[in-house]
Amino acid sequence: MEVNVKLGQNNYGKSDIRLVKVFRDSSRHRLKDIWVDVALEGDFEAAHTQGDNTYLLATDTMRNTVYALAKDGLTSSIEEFGMHLIQHFIKASPKVKSARITFTEHLWARINDHDHSFSREPTKHTATVQGDGTNFTVSSGIGELFVLKTTNSGWEGYVHEQFTTLPETNDRILATIVTANWEYNTLEVDYNAVWNQVYQQILTTFTDHYSPSVQNTLYLMGKAVLEGVPEISRIHFSFPNKHHILYNLERFGMQNNKEIFHADAEPFGCIEGWVERA
Amino acid sequence: MEVNVKLGQNNYGKSDIRLVKVFRDSSRHRLKDIWVDVALEGDFEAAHTQGDNTYLLATDTMRNTVYALAKDGLTSSIEEFGMHLIQHFIKASPKVKSARITFTEHLWARINDHDHSFSREPTKHTATVQGDGTNFTVSSGIGELFVLKTTNSGWEGYVHEQFTTLPETNDRILATIVTANWEYNTLEVDYNAVWNQVYQQILTTFTDHYSPSVQNTLYLMGKAVLEGVPEISRIHFSFPNKHHILYNLERFGMQNNKEIFHADAEPFGCIEGWVERA
Amino acid sequence: MEVNVKLGQNNYGKSDIRLVKVFRDSSRHRLKDIWVDVALEGDFEAAHTQGDNTYLLATDTMRNTVYALAKDGLTSSIEEFGMHLIQHFIKASPKVKSARITFTEHLWARINDHDHSFSREPTKHTATVQGDGTNFTVSSGIGELFVLKTTNSGWEGYVHEQFTTLPETNDRILATIVTANWEYNTLEVDYNAVWNQVYQQILTTFTDHYSPSVQNTLYLMGKAVLEGVPEISRIHFSFPNKHHILYNLERFGMQNNKEIFHADAEPFGCIEGWVERA
Amino acid sequence: MEVNVKLGQNNYGKSDIRLVKVFRDSSRHRLKDIWVDVALEGDFEAAHTQGDNTYLLATDTMRNTVYALAKDGLTSSIEEFGMHLIQHFIKASPKVKSARITFTEHLWARINDHDHSFSREPTKHTATVQGDGTNFTVSSGIGELFVLKTTNSGWEGYVHEQFTTLPETNDRILATIVTANWEYNTLEVDYNAVWNQVYQQILTTFTDHYSPSVQNTLYLMGKAVLEGVPEISRIHFSFPNKHHILYNLERFGMQNNKEIFHADAEPFGCIEGWVERA
Repeated sequence: MEVNVKLGQNNYGKSDIRLVKVFRDSSRHRLKDIWVDVALEGDFEAAHTQGDNTYLLATDTMRNTVYALAKDGLTSSIEEFGMHLIQHFIKASPKVKSARITFTEHLWARINDHDHSFSREPTKHTATVQGDGTNFTVSSGIGELFVLKTTNSGWEGYVHEQFTTLPETNDRILATIVTANWEYNTLEVDYNAVWNQVYQQILTTFTDHYSPSVQNTLYLMGKAVLEGVPEISRIHFSFPNKHHILYNLERFGMQNNKEIFHADAEPFGCIEGWVERA
Repeated sequence: MEVNVKLGQNNYGKSDIRLVKVFRDSSRHRLKDIWVDVALEGDFEAAHTQGDNTYLLATDTMRNTVYALAKDGLTSSIEEFGMHLIQHFIKASPKVKSARITFTEHLWARINDHDHSFSREPTKHTATVQGDGTNFTVSSGIGELFVLKTTNSGWEGYVHEQFTTLPETNDRILATIVTANWEYNTLEVDYNAVWNQVYQQILTTFTDHYSPSVQNTLYLMGKAVLEGVPEISRIHFSFPNKHHILYNLERFGMQNNKEIFHADAEPFGCIEGWVERA
Repeated sequence: MEVNVKLGQNNYGKSDIRLVKVFRDSSRHRLKDIWVDVALEGDFEAAHTQGDNTYLLATDTMRNTVYALAKDGLTSSIEEFGMHLIQHFIKASPKVKSARITFTEHLWARINDHDHSFSREPTKHTATVQGDGTNFTVSSGIGELFVLKTTNSGWEGYVHEQFTTLPETNDRILATIVTANWEYNTLEVDYNAVWNQVYQQILTTFTDHYSPSVQNTLYLMGKAVLEGVPEISRIHFSFPNKHHILYNLERFGMQNNKEIFHADAEPFGCIEGWVERA
Repeated sequence: MEVNVKLGQNNYGKSDIRLVKVFRDSSRHRLKDIWVDVALEGDFEAAHTQGDNTYLLATDTMRNTVYALAKDGLTSSIEEFGMHLIQHFIKASPKVKSARITFTEHLWARINDHDHSFSREPTKHTATVQGDGTNFTVSSGIGELFVLKTTNSGWEGYVHEQFTTLPETNDRILATIVTANWEYNTLEVDYNAVWNQVYQQILTTFTDHYSPSVQNTLYLMGKAVLEGVPEISRIHFSFPNKHHILYNLERFGMQNNKEIFHADAEPFGCIEGWVERA
């Protein structure tokens, strides 16, 4: 059957570029360890419909570019490096309209405050930078921050209907792996300093209240971040509820005074939301 | 600092519910093996800002619901089961405005055409169903279909600039892991039959042309699907370019006549786009 | 504290070498897609205790060697290629006493019987070859073969003691991911043909009996393989018991006639054993 | 063909039991978060060859046992809990001859020194305890400790032969993910204290010398541990060499003064060995 078809939204690029930069400006080395995804959007119609590659930048070239520009362009934050890369890619190919650079930065701590030896931290600094070379949208984030509190959390007063079997509790384990992403109301940002502020605020809020639900803790974290960091316009959290289920020891004539838990792998609750400035 | 904040877009639900249903209507058993994510949207303001759970359905209840409704409601396709679940969730909680159900179905083949013994296929049937109980948006997809052709693919005529080092070729290995997602222009669909049609068409198109780029093959696959399946309005592909790099044997006085390749794990090209009806 | 220490057993090598070879001897291409680990043992005392690398082969050299020798040495089976590699490594370094080569071969099926287009199968052909250049030990294996039967399996008559709560059943789902490894009583083996025989025999035995336990099915599979393949001296199986748990629908006033199951991710039973010639 | 077969070495048990214990003896809670595998060996002939389960303990019972015994038996170290479990399992089933318990303990740090809030550390405390109820073999270990030094490491003076292309260097990045396992010459051990000692010693040795090879660093680490911890009889390390490859910027008219590296995912060198008391 002959039908009329056309190309819709499309993008292409290089993913999972693994770049390490060592700053040797003094004998006390510093280190940036980042994974980079590049995605370009533009007028790539001819490549798709005609097989005409004339205006395509090879994804291998994008890889080379990330390493080459890192030499002078990666100085402080991944967010600034992202804007630098976008400015280059917009110029390098006349048909490119916009670019999106996505980063995962692995953080390293000095071993015993040593000058050039490090051990890797679990938590990630993430960022996505998008732009047309003139205007940029920057978002930053936290990944793989696994937190748990052994008490001061509950889950009560919810809907009880035909399929509800879960007992209410005012004392449970609350555990989640924080994924946070936030946006800015300015480009005048010290991105690494803000990241540390948000990271500390999330940890502090996690400890400072009785949690009646993951939803409420999400809101309080977002509120605290917005109160503490004026540069942030809104923040999103994705919280898997890592359920810890009281193991039934009563079957064996034993008591379980909230001591023995099964850390269930699946399924998991998933609570997500934005907190914004009003 | 006192600032005004508010709750933005939010959703919550249960993820990674692992359901297997055995159809025992004859001695020739059938099997559905699906992973389900449930996400609800609605007016959950009080839960977030006040810690008031009155209108929250527990995610544990959502889990129970998926298993309970599967008994009568999961008869043929995951897409139809998704609509059935949404109708229930909208009724079960007065504050829920819409629900999104995401599925990964694992496919099983009979062992030696046996009545009740199966081995698992690599490729997945995915689906996302969203709706308010009256109107539904359905998309279906294919995941983890790993295909490779040893010839009849090239990459030539692209932009050459300062960071371009990749040599051109008219004979390379093309390999990708197909992720496809498509939407419908009707709800009168035999979803499993369509899935099989799309699956076969993607395989056939992969074999039937010289590929000058992943982009062109993406477009040709989309065009063929839209020509063959009138119920589909548009289709999206995400193609990691699983690079196979000719290993340099010339250094050892040997020739490499496109025989010996390194299957590079990372980085990978990533080519994505929609093909739509004009 | 000064203490006397010495180097014990040690080995080193290159892991996760990803090699693809295309056989272009006719327009109907064939394909080998293998991951290779090389490990060498020998007298590496000076390297460890003195930092003297004089007799060390770089692991990068091992990588180059695998690609280079694949050109002429990888013709049929990974097992034969392993012996070929070992003979080389023993000669390449005077201090090497023995080598172990471990393979994972990814299997590809032709798409629509096409000459050069393939899709990847889920199941792996594995092998480990060890030797000193003259004598070799070869073992072959199957990995990632996920099988399930919906009936004709039970679990009854086991020990009941203070911590036993599991109900007995004569009709359950039996599901496992087969990992098999076998050894030979000869080096005159058509390894690929034997692999196919074992693969088919495992599938057939899985279907042909009522299984009172994973242990009994393990034994029957081993027995059938040893009866069918005289070149095999013994075979080992590792069977995760992928539990499928009847979901309790009775709480909701519904019956669950062995239709609705939760596929539990963890914990899992793990049953392992050798079946040997008497 | 009728052939004589017999059952060889075999074991079975429960894997991936996920146990969390909260110590509530004061308002300053403590936490143990462990994954447990249980494997039993014994006379299970009848189960395998006859399908007679009379002497089999269900793996579900093993799971229940781990949670139940954790209440009183998990007080300090996983190593001691392992011995406690083995003593139980030997008594619980008359045909069991020996048991092996394998642990992965996830470590948690207090958030801001808070009484009941924690964040998870990347590194694991592992242990394997094996025994017949009277005699025990204990080994302890470290997993997922990712370390990197930006200088003070090289790789020179190795074998140069036909397939050697790697350039020598006296200044490279050295990075590895430490997996260590050690054995004891006594059962009078403060296992957690020893673990911390070994962990600190490995970090310190990583920083304190020029590394001419991973092999030499492995030996020096082992030597330092044996010198510092008299209870340890020998220690094994497995070191993936996480290669960081200088990116070739000279092609673009730029210099790369050991600043810009590609963190290669695969293949990786793998260096393994024991260091023992002489």
